Amino acid sequence: MPELRQNLITRDWVIIATERARRPDQFVSEKKAVIPLNEYDPECPFCPGNEHLTTDEHFKLLNNDKWAVRVVPNKFPALNSKGSGKRSINGIYRSMDAFGIHDVVIEHPRHDLHFALYDTHSIENIMYAYKRRYQEIKSDKRVESIVIFRNHGKAAGTSLVHPHSQIVATPVVPFQVRSRLDTAIRYFDDNGECIFCRTLNEEISAKERIIFATELFTAFIPYAALSPFHIWIFPNRHFASFDEITDTETIALAETLHSVLKKLFVALNNPDFNFTIRSIPTHEKNSDYFHWYIAIVPRITIAAGFELGSGMYISTAIPEESAKFLRQF
Amino acid sequence: MPELRQNLITRDWVIIATERARRPDQFVSEKKAVIPLNEYDPECPFCPGNEHLTTDEHFKLLNNDKWAVRVVPNKFPALNSKGSGKRSINGIYRSMDAFGIHDVVIEHPRHDLHFALYDTHSIENIMYAYKRRYQEIKSDKRVESIVIFRNHGKAAGTSLVHPHSQIVATPVVPFQVRSRLDTAIRYFDDNGECIFCRTLNEEISAKERIIFATELFTAFIPYAALSPFHIWIFPNRHFASFDEITDTETIALAETLHSVLKKLFVALNNPDFNFTIRSIPTHEKNSDYFHWYIAIVPRITIAAGFELGSGMYISTAIPEESAKFLRQF
Repeated sequence: MPELRQNLITRDWVIIATERARRPDQFVSEKKAVIPLNEYDPECPFCPGNEHLTTDEHFKLLNNDKWAVRVVPNKFPALNSKGSGKRSINGIYRSMDAFGIHDVVIEHPRHDLHFALYDTHSIENIMYAYKRRYQEIKSDKRVESIVIFRNHGKAAGTSLVHPHSQIVATPVVPFQVRSRLDTAIRYFDDNGECIFCRTLNEEISAKERIIFATELFTAFIPYAALSPFHIWIFPNRHFASFDEITDTETIALAETLHSVLKKLFVALNNPDFNFTIRSIPTHEKNSDYFHWYIAIVPRITIAAGFELGSGMYISTAIPEESAKFLRQF
Repeated sequence: MPELRQNLITRDWVIIATERARRPDQFVSEKKAVIPLNEYDPECPFCPGNEHLTTDEHFKLLNNDKWAVRVVPNKFPALNSKGSGKRSINGIYRSMDAFGIHDVVIEHPRHDLHFALYDTHSIENIMYAYKRRYQEIKSDKRVESIVIFRNHGKAAGTSLVHPHSQIVATPVVPFQVRSRLDTAIRYFDDNGECIFCRTLNEEISAKERIIFATELFTAFIPYAALSPFHIWIFPNRHFASFDEITDTETIALAETLHSVLKKLFVALNNPDFNFTIRSIPTHEKNSDYFHWYIAIVPRITIAAGFELGSGMYISTAIPEESAKFLRQF
């Protein structure tokens, strides 16, 4: 029988459609037509030798004399730093001369690598670059919210092949982020505990949805995962802002993210995916009720009219089965 | 300069990314590899002659001796009517033995037609079938919310080719629907008017985002459209529940929907799309603050990591330009 499950953190109801459920191995991506990539592409603006095409570098990490990670401004930013942030309210029309920041994190000098195929040290470098830029951007008081994200593959919205992630800082707290904060605050007020810590403890006890765990991080498929193989990585320690991650935690996070993405790569045949770091809005002072985390969303199903028309999800994967499947790899 | 616009009805902020904006004609879909379809396919469960494959018919409309529209139960329902609706709360885990209804509306006997290519009378029949089933389903008191939707094309989540739409009734009010009701109620309490009526009046005065209008319906691109060519069709008369549509309005709605979908078909070269009818949850008694409408979402861009991580949208189309472009067709 179909089961409805509620995701307490997002408050979404998810239909686990058992009558159309598929086995975990039925979510394996079709073989893609492989366009072999070179290690370096002289036409690629992110490849070594073309640094002059991405100027005003914000940050780089060196490995001997060469760069390992670079953070540069996006050439075609969704938001830019020249906006005044001035709001205009004209009847029902509200707009803002949009201030913002849009960075590109060039993750690796190599043009042809996949995130899952880096060595763990490269991922540590990327996490460190995220943290550094997060701290710098946060110091600009016009910023309200910072989203770090990675698009992999066409179904996930990638345009450039060279491996990169992005950081966008917005001058407003997005409505969905605010709505989830409200849920977390209400839970804290009612129960005296962080809803994320509680979820983490329950998932660690239940075991059946855990994919990978270290002493410092836990990766699991949520009880009411919004889509098949949707994965959350939580730090075991309670803290709300991603940039408060310690060096030891950065190393453990790299290991966890690497392991989980390798599992997806092997088990589902290199699916397109997004990941995103959800951190507390930058101006929030009280952080007892919020816990940052990473969400990984393989783009192996499509939100159709029902999802668009209700915000409710139908999932054809059973979270416990998906987790068991991924644990094998 | 990029502009942030707030959609008052959904409360979402949308980034109108002027620095990466595209001209309207740059959203035209690529030519699809055309698989010519036959008028009838003997293998298709929805084609005339195969009615025995879709039994327990809920409703049909006849045209002379033949059916024009049929409504049947989905063979692989996301929710079914055998669920008890019993809730189970086990610590943080909330689930429900999911009661629900999942219908398929077989829109036309012909296997090879596109919604935009029907005659208007066929669309009237479909709208009438929607209304009838809406009324029947609503009479089941276990139902809280009814979503009517249409998926067209692979990017919109279609699986079967034969033209059909779907109706899903859920035993809970989806969180997103509830959240938007709250917004509408608050607006009504603060301003003493329906937020949808106000928006409609402002859009009719402003003119620049209107695509098509009759005396009874108005089709426009919202000021803060969440994605390129996202279109709303509002009834000009205030009423909250779709099934209260009159016969005259049904005819006008068919004409409006037909015209708008033809415009999309011609202007954007048969893009994949979803449409959905957003009506008030079935148990709401007070309907002063809500107004049903149709949302049409061409699936011509992809929500990437930023959208998933923030719920905020980046649109590369300028609503006024998109509307002007569509008015020409």
